[in-house]
Amino acid sequence: MSLQALFDDLPIPIIQAPMAGATFDALAIAVSRAGALGSLAAAGAAPDEIGPAVDSIRTATDRPFAVNLLVAPRAAPDAAELDAALARLAPWYAELGLEPPAHPNRFSHDFDAQLAALVAAAPPIASFAFDTIPPDAVDALHRAGSYVIGTANTVAEARAWAELGADGICAQGMEAGGHRGNFLAEIDDSLIGTMALVATIRAAVNLPVIAAGGIMDGRGVAAALALGASAVQMGTAFLLADEAITNAPWRQAIVQAGDDPTRLTRAFSGRYARGLENRFMREMRAIEDELPAYPVQNRLTQPLRAAAEKSGETGLMSLWAGQAVTLAEAAPAGDLVRRWWAEAQAAARALSARTGA
Amino acid sequence: MSLQALFDDLPIPIIQAPMAGATFDALAIAVSRAGALGSLAAAGAAPDEIGPAVDSIRTATDRPFAVNLLVAPRAAPDAAELDAALARLAPWYAELGLEPPAHPNRFSHDFDAQLAALVAAAPPIASFAFDTIPPDAVDALHRAGSYVIGTANTVAEARAWAELGADGICAQGMEAGGHRGNFLAEIDDSLIGTMALVATIRAAVNLPVIAAGGIMDGRGVAAALALGASAVQMGTAFLLADEAITNAPWRQAIVQAGDDPTRLTRAFSGRYARGLENRFMREMRAIEDELPAYPVQNRLTQPLRAAAEKSGETGLMSLWAGQAVTLAEAAPAGDLVRRWWAEAQAAARALSARTGA
Repeated sequence: MSLQALFDDLPIPIIQAPMAGATFDALAIAVSRAGALGSLAAAGAAPDEIGPAVDSIRTATDRPFAVNLLVAPRAAPDAAELDAALARLAPWYAELGLEPPAHPNRFSHDFDAQLAALVAAAPPIASFAFDTIPPDAVDALHRAGSYVIGTANTVAEARAWAELGADGICAQGMEAGGHRGNFLAEIDDSLIGTMALVATIRAAVNLPVIAAGGIMDGRGVAAALALGASAVQMGTAFLLADEAITNAPWRQAIVQAGDDPTRLTRAFSGRYARGLENRFMREMRAIEDELPAYPVQNRLTQPLRAAAEKSGETGLMSLWAGQAVTLAEAAPAGDLVRRWWAEAQAAARALSARTGA
Repeated sequence: MSLQALFDDLPIPIIQAPMAGATFDALAIAVSRAGALGSLAAAGAAPDEIGPAVDSIRTATDRPFAVNLLVAPRAAPDAAELDAALARLAPWYAELGLEPPAHPNRFSHDFDAQLAALVAAAPPIASFAFDTIPPDAVDALHRAGSYVIGTANTVAEARAWAELGADGICAQGMEAGGHRGNFLAEIDDSLIGTMALVATIRAAVNLPVIAAGGIMDGRGVAAALALGASAVQMGTAFLLADEAITNAPWRQAIVQAGDDPTRLTRAFSGRYARGLENRFMREMRAIEDELPAYPVQNRLTQPLRAAAEKSGETGLMSLWAGQAVTLAEAAPAGDLVRRWWAEAQAAARALSARTGA
């Protein structure tokens, strides 16, 4: 068996992107049941929550699925850095009638413990973003029977994953919503469009490539497959799915978005991510280079974003979305997947007619 | 007749992108003769050179072709601005043993005169970038029998061209090599990947869309058509064609390029453009916001770039190229076009097999 064979066996080679904060097991289950491949975004899960979440998917479906972790550094900011970061956030907290939080004891779940839990849970596919993992972790996942997919924003990043023994590369084009996965290149040097990134990674690395970024419907699915992708990862396209846990103000902001609505920002989390441009992004832009790196800034803005969500204040929420978000549609996830596949089939027929193939 | 019908009649719906400095009539003729659609990059041509160049294509082939102009503002920088700009360039000129040039009398050809010559020449297609043209110019081109294609980097820019009565939109994704066409959005707000841009413009505007940016081979052609593009524009993919006038050091730099080699810069021309990153781009980056706008900076660096080309000093040349440039291949243009079309047909067959369509 190989990852390519797993993809070939999928009735619908669409992967639902792991989106922390917008998805958990229900969406993954619905997508895998529909014949595509669901992903569990486990980055926000405590190590002891990962096994039960994986079990809940296995219990609900015998179809393959993926579990994703974000490779976060262990953060140990000093008190002065935290004070400065919280001072910059104080006016925003004040706007919602809140004091900034105290210095947190931790800034993210312990990655090594999450990884150990993932190996123990042995999902069909383990996928990673934000960095590579150690070679022995790749080996441990392989021994557990999990395929390893690494996220790359550049050809050099794809080569790094290939050298580690990854089974496939998720080529995350610059169109994609949410966090950028760049780890070797700086942000400005890592923004490569999906069309170019899939083609160049495919030529550089002898592994299945998953196309991600800007793919919102069946035409996009057909395009990515024609380009040579083995599967197509879609995230923003699932944000309005019934089973997504996208909160109500975020959904409304997506539905109401105007032309060309997204921008990159590191103001929410300390790592660049793409979302609907809003007031927090605009007003923090001038100082965003000064903010602490992920996961520190991410942790410090968590209570702010949670409070903003409660009051429906979208100007202070992280409204992650990809560049083609205006094409998002609301429906049960299984219906979306089946509709996209029918559209992809229609696009294939039209392409055959145009090319005379 | 309509632009869509013209595209439908093309044996091969590939448009060779107009690239000033890398292409002129020979490449356009070779491409149109091969059953695709050649473009004449007329921005660098004096008004009285446009008619003869169009005639030379018409004499060589009865196939359709396009002529492209860049909508450049009439520049009138004051002497102090020119002195400051030339002072910044003085060390670079000195490196090549040259004095900076005197204050030029003009910075580009007169656009209105070029446009009048284009209307008189009445090519099958007139395409534009850098800005829109006045409504009466669109009308004049239509009366002359020319279809009008406007270049858009955003959905809003596509809408602007549609409102003017353009017949088609060239959706220039951020992957594309050479100058960005953005005119309503600032550069940071106009970098949209081809996959997202084609899909969103197609949904917003009821006109044929031409996909441009990051498309380097037949798989890319098939992908763009599957996405719903009516035709596919390729530029970087033609840079190594025998009939391209790409100079020898530029060709060599393309062949030798490593992974992820391109960056955006405004240091050469005063307008952002994508090319192979080199020393001039890197060392000018810190001050590039201070440089005069296109076409002033473009004119002031012309003698520098010409001298650098003569001495093969690629560090000081504008080596325009798109993000997937490493896939460029050298061959006669007709052979390239036919090869890409055969690849597109193979991609269509593979897509049909995968989708069961």
